[in-house]
Amino acid sequence: MTVTTETRRLDEAAADLLFREARTAGAFTGEEVTDEQVRAIYDLVKYAPTSMNTQPVRLLLVRTPEARERLATMMSGSNGDKVRRAPLSVVVAADRNFHDRLPEVFPHYPGARDHFLDEEPRHRTAVFNGAMQLAYLVIGIRALGLDAGPMTGIDAPAIEEAFFTGLDQEVLAVVNVGVADREVGHPRLPRLAYEDVVRTV
Amino acid sequence: MTVTTETRRLDEAAADLLFREARTAGAFTGEEVTDEQVRAIYDLVKYAPTSMNTQPVRLLLVRTPEARERLATMMSGSNGDKVRRAPLSVVVAADRNFHDRLPEVFPHYPGARDHFLDEEPRHRTAVFNGAMQLAYLVIGIRALGLDAGPMTGIDAPAIEEAFFTGLDQEVLAVVNVGVADREVGHPRLPRLAYEDVVRTV
Repeated sequence: MTVTTETRRLDEAAADLLFREARTAGAFTGEEVTDEQVRAIYDLVKYAPTSMNTQPVRLLLVRTPEARERLATMMSGSNGDKVRRAPLSVVVAADRNFHDRLPEVFPHYPGARDHFLDEEPRHRTAVFNGAMQLAYLVIGIRALGLDAGPMTGIDAPAIEEAFFTGLDQEVLAVVNVGVADREVGHPRLPRLAYEDVVRTV
Repeated sequence: MTVTTETRRLDEAAADLLFREARTAGAFTGEEVTDEQVRAIYDLVKYAPTSMNTQPVRLLLVRTPEARERLATMMSGSNGDKVRRAPLSVVVAADRNFHDRLPEVFPHYPGARDHFLDEEPRHRTAVFNGAMQLAYLVIGIRALGLDAGPMTGIDAPAIEEAFFTGLDQEVLAVVNVGVADREVGHPRLPRLAYEDVVRTV
């Protein structure tokens, strides 16, 4: 039997879970997020594509009370309190030396690493693909039945200095993870219309 | 009844469709991709989060044979033939003037637009959130039961000159869309281990 696009299509409940009913979370119930859950999230989102399979994303799980409070002081505006209310915060960074892994993850093309010897385009590739993997991570957190609170309003240099010494990684975002307290929140913000975003040639 | 993370979790078939069995497509069957399908994809992925709801992504559907051949000549290496084999190619760009829409899409904070008066950080925000929305788009294409072939090996300035005159948009990627010809392809490339990507503090 031919597999048609109709039978392969994502069902309505899953579309609601990942996109339509999912909301950025700023407050959470007390429910913990286990390492096993984080592993399940990674084991799902690791398959999503990056340029030349570069996979630059690196994650720091901030768990101890001391580290969590220190991180909270490095957030903009109300984001510090969002960190304090979350059971787990994940610092999402991009490895600027992702190209050292290309012989292993892009093995059919031995020249792959040499594409990235210039620092400036290499760092741009790290951030671009790190941003893609941040997006996959948000979807993967929701796929596990958890809620994600991604934040780019952060003091990235301070976080790098506090938690990334000796690592050549650029901090991109902090994502709070947990079960959202759905009593707290605001109405969904407007989205651009199809006609504002899509044109045809 | 309390909704638990167990009952909300994405089912196995959906996890396979979006992540585990999905593959970047380089060859396609003859099946067309309709505007209705593209609209359904956008109506799903538009809900995924961006920084301050910036939503910079802009999509150009390349449909006419003349435009498709012109685009194919602006791709690196074998990517031109991938465009030629696809029923639809989508140029994914980021609007550098996304901030002009903030009064509308971030209405509770009247000062939002003024955060982005400096060009350099504004362009960085456009590319970063455009990359996130490119990732959401890949997942949304798969959600519709279609296959995505995202490519960053492109001559972006040439594509901008050919198809984006008068628009202040930065071309980020081209994504082929269709039903993959599963006879064509290579084994999945290796993914980094959890231990290589995740650490805890």
